[in-house]
Amino acid sequence: MKQKLLDMLESRKDEMIQIRRHLHQYPELSFKEEKTAQYIADFYKGKDVEVQTNVGNGYGIIVTIKGDKPGKVIGLRADFDALPIQEETDAPYKSKNEGVMHACGHDGHTAYMMILADCLIQFKSSIAGTIKIIHQHAEETPPGGAKSIVESGILDDLDAVFGTHLFPTNPAGEIGYRSGYAMSGRAYFKLVIQGVGGHGSSPQNANDPIVAGAHFVTAVQTIVSRRINPFEMGVVTIGSFDGKGTFNVIKDSIEIEGDVRYMNDKTAQIIDQQMHRITNGIQEEFGVTCELTYIPDYPPLYNDPEITSEVASILENANDPAITKVAEYPMLSGSEDFSYYLEKVPGTFYYIGCKPKGVENAYFNHHPKFDIDEDALLVAAKSVAHVVWKYVGE
Amino acid sequence: MKQKLLDMLESRKDEMIQIRRHLHQYPELSFKEEKTAQYIADFYKGKDVEVQTNVGNGYGIIVTIKGDKPGKVIGLRADFDALPIQEETDAPYKSKNEGVMHACGHDGHTAYMMILADCLIQFKSSIAGTIKIIHQHAEETPPGGAKSIVESGILDDLDAVFGTHLFPTNPAGEIGYRSGYAMSGRAYFKLVIQGVGGHGSSPQNANDPIVAGAHFVTAVQTIVSRRINPFEMGVVTIGSFDGKGTFNVIKDSIEIEGDVRYMNDKTAQIIDQQMHRITNGIQEEFGVTCELTYIPDYPPLYNDPEITSEVASILENANDPAITKVAEYPMLSGSEDFSYYLEKVPGTFYYIGCKPKGVENAYFNHHPKFDIDEDALLVAAKSVAHVVWKYVGE
Amino acid sequence: MKQKLLDMLESRKDEMIQIRRHLHQYPELSFKEEKTAQYIADFYKGKDVEVQTNVGNGYGIIVTIKGDKPGKVIGLRADFDALPIQEETDAPYKSKNEGVMHACGHDGHTAYMMILADCLIQFKSSIAGTIKIIHQHAEETPPGGAKSIVESGILDDLDAVFGTHLFPTNPAGEIGYRSGYAMSGRAYFKLVIQGVGGHGSSPQNANDPIVAGAHFVTAVQTIVSRRINPFEMGVVTIGSFDGKGTFNVIKDSIEIEGDVRYMNDKTAQIIDQQMHRITNGIQEEFGVTCELTYIPDYPPLYNDPEITSEVASILENANDPAITKVAEYPMLSGSEDFSYYLEKVPGTFYYIGCKPKGVENAYFNHHPKFDIDEDALLVAAKSVAHVVWKYVGE
Amino acid sequence: MKQKLLDMLESRKDEMIQIRRHLHQYPELSFKEEKTAQYIADFYKGKDVEVQTNVGNGYGIIVTIKGDKPGKVIGLRADFDALPIQEETDAPYKSKNEGVMHACGHDGHTAYMMILADCLIQFKSSIAGTIKIIHQHAEETPPGGAKSIVESGILDDLDAVFGTHLFPTNPAGEIGYRSGYAMSGRAYFKLVIQGVGGHGSSPQNANDPIVAGAHFVTAVQTIVSRRINPFEMGVVTIGSFDGKGTFNVIKDSIEIEGDVRYMNDKTAQIIDQQMHRITNGIQEEFGVTCELTYIPDYPPLYNDPEITSEVASILENANDPAITKVAEYPMLSGSEDFSYYLEKVPGTFYYIGCKPKGVENAYFNHHPKFDIDEDALLVAAKSVAHVVWKYVGE
Repeated sequence: MKQKLLDMLESRKDEMIQIRRHLHQYPELSFKEEKTAQYIADFYKGKDVEVQTNVGNGYGIIVTIKGDKPGKVIGLRADFDALPIQEETDAPYKSKNEGVMHACGHDGHTAYMMILADCLIQFKSSIAGTIKIIHQHAEETPPGGAKSIVESGILDDLDAVFGTHLFPTNPAGEIGYRSGYAMSGRAYFKLVIQGVGGHGSSPQNANDPIVAGAHFVTAVQTIVSRRINPFEMGVVTIGSFDGKGTFNVIKDSIEIEGDVRYMNDKTAQIIDQQMHRITNGIQEEFGVTCELTYIPDYPPLYNDPEITSEVASILENANDPAITKVAEYPMLSGSEDFSYYLEKVPGTFYYIGCKPKGVENAYFNHHPKFDIDEDALLVAAKSVAHVVWKYVGE
Repeated sequence: MKQKLLDMLESRKDEMIQIRRHLHQYPELSFKEEKTAQYIADFYKGKDVEVQTNVGNGYGIIVTIKGDKPGKVIGLRADFDALPIQEETDAPYKSKNEGVMHACGHDGHTAYMMILADCLIQFKSSIAGTIKIIHQHAEETPPGGAKSIVESGILDDLDAVFGTHLFPTNPAGEIGYRSGYAMSGRAYFKLVIQGVGGHGSSPQNANDPIVAGAHFVTAVQTIVSRRINPFEMGVVTIGSFDGKGTFNVIKDSIEIEGDVRYMNDKTAQIIDQQMHRITNGIQEEFGVTCELTYIPDYPPLYNDPEITSEVASILENANDPAITKVAEYPMLSGSEDFSYYLEKVPGTFYYIGCKPKGVENAYFNHHPKFDIDEDALLVAAKSVAHVVWKYVGE
Repeated sequence: MKQKLLDMLESRKDEMIQIRRHLHQYPELSFKEEKTAQYIADFYKGKDVEVQTNVGNGYGIIVTIKGDKPGKVIGLRADFDALPIQEETDAPYKSKNEGVMHACGHDGHTAYMMILADCLIQFKSSIAGTIKIIHQHAEETPPGGAKSIVESGILDDLDAVFGTHLFPTNPAGEIGYRSGYAMSGRAYFKLVIQGVGGHGSSPQNANDPIVAGAHFVTAVQTIVSRRINPFEMGVVTIGSFDGKGTFNVIKDSIEIEGDVRYMNDKTAQIIDQQMHRITNGIQEEFGVTCELTYIPDYPPLYNDPEITSEVASILENANDPAITKVAEYPMLSGSEDFSYYLEKVPGTFYYIGCKPKGVENAYFNHHPKFDIDEDALLVAAKSVAHVVWKYVGE
Repeated sequence: MKQKLLDMLESRKDEMIQIRRHLHQYPELSFKEEKTAQYIADFYKGKDVEVQTNVGNGYGIIVTIKGDKPGKVIGLRADFDALPIQEETDAPYKSKNEGVMHACGHDGHTAYMMILADCLIQFKSSIAGTIKIIHQHAEETPPGGAKSIVESGILDDLDAVFGTHLFPTNPAGEIGYRSGYAMSGRAYFKLVIQGVGGHGSSPQNANDPIVAGAHFVTAVQTIVSRRINPFEMGVVTIGSFDGKGTFNVIKDSIEIEGDVRYMNDKTAQIIDQQMHRITNGIQEEFGVTCELTYIPDYPPLYNDPEITSEVASILENANDPAITKVAEYPMLSGSEDFSYYLEKVPGTFYYIGCKPKGVENAYFNHHPKFDIDEDALLVAAKSVAHVVWKYVGE
């Protein structure tokens, strides 16, 4: 039966590519994917499945495929939003939406998942359990779509959840996995330091927020250098120090913004705490008023070790010509809201090599020249099919 | 004879006021005082004096009044440029030039000086020596007009030079003097720190200029706290820290601008040297490229002690009802390009009280509501007349 | 009469020198001047004056000389303690007390004052008023003797108070005065920063007090650079950063000590406030425990302008061959507990040139080779006699 | 044959314990292990092996066991130096050398290795290859003994090298391994900052090294926070800031000492480079003279992945009742000069659980109460025997 499913996927490879190219031409930004969602929903029309639309805080779609026999409930997620980037490739199916581009491969995720779902629907009689296809909106922009889909309760009955991501530095056929913490969590912060403006020649009548801000910047370095376990990953970057003014006038206030990364909850907690501590300290030390906005968004992504190990083993032993290599990948400093599913349900998120053929150094995700080897779509579909069959196949 | 001169000034008080009001309505920015200069030059037309126009790097005017007898050569300076400020007073003679205002009293300086010059011309037969009236352009904007007038050589034969400034915190009738260093010198600096941009989550691949800039700011504090004699005045203000960017992107470069003040050449030298030293240090320390532009402009203003003491004594003993008080004033943190004349020729620069009557707290120079008591014009004219007479009067 | 007094002083010049040499051989430390006090008290035995001993918190002596006629009450102060310095001169009257030396000239102060007092006693019939001779203990070591003498109430009836100090950079015959703030006030501070020790390779399990201390040091620089009026004197020096430890062990705690100087109460207040503010800020910022001990001791010394001007005028017009020059001196960064008298009673404190003859660069006070020109003793005595006579002479 | 070897080891367990207790009573410091080395050399007297003494820069001993047949050449290392610690246990075989203690288990390493070597000698006829027993001196004190032994060339013919370490937080029977970088490399540094001393009230005449030192401390934090890959381990700890002085005197110089840790050569290089860079920057920035001594000592310890994996597999499949658990351990922040062997020859270094029975929280290595479960000696010996047999057993 599984082999029949795999053969069917193989035979529909071109459809995957066509869907992907259609989506690629009409990318939509996070939370604005109205037409994309409509396109997906239309695809399922008349098919023997339950389809829920407008799930969560946007255009999320849940397609529930119930097998004929009872069994486990698993989730398969594909995200479908694009980025505010002007495409710079020469593809004939280049983006037709000015300034918007599928530069992260979500078009590919969605394309293979639609065909895979369609095939699974046709194999319902051989399925013992339920498969929930999660077509997710808004992965790129916090707060993201995943959190709200989890909160909707629609996935409360899942036993496991799986997701994949196209990975352009490795060739099609290669699959990467990582057990445990695999992608970083992150937080955004903004600090407004309100001092007292005045003339540059009379500092005693003012309260200089630039000096206070400089001390904040130097103090913040001690979080990573002294507070975090040296074996753990943590970053605090101040990307913006907005203190532009007139050379001989002491400013009233300045604004600092930054980005925080971590690979586990403990480090997240330490940085959060220390950022507040330092802010309070600077306020006291310099008599300025500090307003700190600190917003953790996507948590670190944690792949369940047991499931990851099982998935790696399934793929290594798949004996599938499409899958040429399965390897452990290092932790990545990027973030993913798939982490919200994994906070709720055990599962794993793995990488699908998609380096364009004949290219030495591929453009990475989010680059205006990002491109993929479309063979990777079938690899993704088949790899997920292998996993699905292990969990709910007959 | 001197009394006749004083009486004549008294009788022309209204003319001074009318001239001042005319100038006040048509203020012009530094280096752009074309019409103001024309107005002044026209005033001297047909009078028995030598008039040189376009002196120095702008519209400077030198009016040379040669007495019938030989004697000392003295300079009297009045500046005539205005400021890029939108006037906010209700005066009927309010500025008619959008965004430009005589908010520093230079209209008054010029008005009294024109009438005083006209009177002195009429007293040439009683004058033993030469008076050079310096109608100076561009005092407000470095490099200013004074330096270029000095460099023109026109004042090479001066024995002494005098200048005054309207002073709105003290009432008309009061005159303030200070011996030795009286007003601060200043320098402007700009530091561009060029690092290497990158993604916020990978600081090791970038070179963060905001962190280097913060260390610059903290290091600069040590110039005033550790390098300068604690009994000497010195200020280093960073008025602008332009590091605005995106929260999760490490910037390529930032730009810092600031203002330096000092009361003597030694302090000026120390700060200059230390600013370069710290810049070089930061460059080495953080591996960034630092480009420092450091431009000392007006030097500290040094009033010759002997001449200042003599002027104070002349005014204290003037027995003139217009002069009600003569007092020593503290050093001021403001700057003045009259200091260039004083580097070349001994002399003194003193303050003419002009607080509007009935006002508790007068607006200070450069405020959009700056205003003067026009009685001060006569005080200024008469005070200078007393001084002139002592030097070249019969 | 005054002339007779001056002549008598002149005739007793050698006695002054002998007394000074005696004291010089037997110096005693602050609060331990038992024998010195006894020596002084013995001197007054049998003389027609009231002598109070053990005044204040040590061996202070007040000698009250009541004139035959009523009049003003004035105080004359001479201090008599020595320093914990091993003398390195070759004088035949070198210190005989190991490690103790009159290296600040208090021996001279006391010597001339004893002879002056003895002479004044003999002129009581010509005196209209009262003279209180203040032989003060413990000037060198805070809290000093002056404060306690003031608090004893013994000087409550003073109309004016005078003091002098030997000044080794200027020749005997020269007298220096300064109106208003003349010598700095000072404070001592100690900061103990308690962190949490640990192994150097695991900073996350410790709380590094050296890092917190370094931030304290850099933050403290901003007090002088940003908080104080740039025209006012202020110094904060960290003289000791005791963080010695083992290279690979994070310390438990460190100890910082420092010295603060200022020339007026406002600056004193600002520094005091900011030191506490920064300490609290560091505590909050780094989560360490900070214990700050901040002890202002001698206040800035403020010479009454009217009295100082009068004294300068008396000395300038003294027509006394012993007084060859009277000059205004700059503010000094040293401190003196004579400031406590001046907080209570108007008066002035002036300097007596005493540079050893034939010396180019004299050793300054507190140097182991400090030396004086003993001619200065007579200058001091006569100068004070001139002042005394103006206030209470017939 | 292997089983016979294992049985022989089992039967000589008590001997191991006796040797260990003897060594424990007579610990000797690094480079001073004269008697220990003699004791070991005596043990091999009369046995059929080649023994080289005084190898390397101290008392190193190499015992070469040549099997009857040709084959691989492997090294087995046991270190034998002790620590400058006063033992605080109640053991009957407590250290008899004042202030010296085997607090790191090297007594145990040596004891099991001597018995194992003796057994292997007896099995020479069954050995195809050569075993070099490395009894190493001076592991605890850089530069250590390992480096010099490698440099002696005696190990040039090794195909693989193995070492173990007693690990008191896990029970006897448990063995821990780690592939790749497993223990940190480290460097020591000392920075002398030479400024110019002076009086605290006149900072302008001095050059304050404490302020420069504080800036060094804050700048150093940026190495870990900004220069190192956030996924890599790096630590820079300043353990000593020796700036003790007098509160009101600016010091001449201060001395800073610290410890650096890293897990790979690239991080080592970055920290080394940045430390020099920052030092040069501080020198320039503050005009002080900086003398930096930076001494990398033990490099990061890198276990060959292939050999480690093979060893793990051998032990997991040993079917030996003494070995109850084999687990992957995390990277450790401690350092080991076994890393020098591994730079030259592939091999692995693994951990032998030795937590005393009945103890909840065992004292860690280098603690004055450090203790071991002596059963661990047999575990160590047998585990190494398994490994040896795989490489050179018949």
